[in-house]
Amino acid sequence: MNDIQILIDELVKFRDERNWNQFHNTKDLALAISIEAAELNELFLWKTTEESENVDRNKLKEELADIFAFGLLLAGKHGFDVKEIVLEKIIKNGEKYPVGKSKGTAKKYNEL
Amino acid sequence: MNDIQILIDELVKFRDERNWNQFHNTKDLALAISIEAAELNELFLWKTTEESENVDRNKLKEELADIFAFGLLLAGKHGFDVKEIVLEKIIKNGEKYPVGKSKGTAKKYNEL
Amino acid sequence: MNDIQILIDELVKFRDERNWNQFHNTKDLALAISIEAAELNELFLWKTTEESENVDRNKLKEELADIFAFGLLLAGKHGFDVKEIVLEKIIKNGEKYPVGKSKGTAKKYNEL
Amino acid sequence: MNDIQILIDELVKFRDERNWNQFHNTKDLALAISIEAAELNELFLWKTTEESENVDRNKLKEELADIFAFGLLLAGKHGFDVKEIVLEKIIKNGEKYPVGKSKGTAKKYNEL
Repeated sequence: MNDIQILIDELVKFRDERNWNQFHNTKDLALAISIEAAELNELFLWKTTEESENVDRNKLKEELADIFAFGLLLAGKHGFDVKEIVLEKIIKNGEKYPVGKSKGTAKKYNEL
Repeated sequence: MNDIQILIDELVKFRDERNWNQFHNTKDLALAISIEAAELNELFLWKTTEESENVDRNKLKEELADIFAFGLLLAGKHGFDVKEIVLEKIIKNGEKYPVGKSKGTAKKYNEL
Repeated sequence: MNDIQILIDELVKFRDERNWNQFHNTKDLALAISIEAAELNELFLWKTTEESENVDRNKLKEELADIFAFGLLLAGKHGFDVKEIVLEKIIKNGEKYPVGKSKGTAKKYNEL
Repeated sequence: MNDIQILIDELVKFRDERNWNQFHNTKDLALAISIEAAELNELFLWKTTEESENVDRNKLKEELADIFAFGLLLAGKHGFDVKEIVLEKIIKNGEKYPVGKSKGTAKKYNEL
């Protein structure tokens, strides 16, 4: 079994042991991701870009893990294959950001 | 090679072909995750919990994929093993939310 | 003097007494707003829409106040007249969402 | 009448003309603030702190105005006096961040 499925299975087990499936609707799982993303960002608030590279690794790991956890629960709920959807998005982004136009610039695709 | 590493490698390749590593500092990658998380949430804005379950599957896939993509790039940048950090977080959350206390309630650990 | 300016003046005084102007660049003030917005949203996580109406009023006040505070500091930093920019945005939104097309629907303007 | 109340009245009028009150529950208004905050942050994504100061003023005005708009609608819905809640929060923050301890540092109150 692949690593992504192992993680989803563990997360679902954790959830079901606590009877939390009743709370894990799609809208709230998405909200949870965004709240965890804000906690991640809080590690860098008022810090320079350089200082942010030296963030506490344990805190960074934990905040990132929380985002992955809710992301995987949401993907699992809808039966998505995470590998597949990310690879598909890379292809799609390749069309929005062709190398020739986007190389070395951070402009959004609609400004290229 | 495991699926998570395959995805990180593909994302890094995509990034490097466009010379985007210069923009992908830790602070901005975290910001990108949070912006993508907001785009995910926008799919559910002004929708009921029930309506949100019937979200357009393609849009949901794409927004989730964007979050995973920046999350994986950030994990890869810091050399984290995603499987490991998520499993570690599950253990830690198990201590914060013991089954006996947290079963069937959505209360935060500091309110249990 | 109007209420909005009184608030900005108090916030700037608070900031300057602590020598925090050095941290209050535009990018971090925007980040701060978004972190406070996530804290506001956390009050409603895993709660139904109905339960959310009965949120603790003191917590709601505090989280909203934090958002206004950073928003006003950002507006003040750029010399914006908050009353003016909100009234201008209402006019602009009225063009994007004409009553005839948008009445009773939560659709985004590009789907009307 | 004060400026803040004028803005709330205009926003409520705009909302009611479109029959949007049905969508403006507390949970979704909070979500809307956070989505608008992400749009504000997107103006600065992949930009340095210095570049971010030179953001397009019109875009900055519009994104800030959106945040204020939903914040004011939420405050109005719960009958809050925005001036009062912000002034109260300043006092509370003054207790968390006494000048002597917090001057010149961006540390969080629980790390002071």
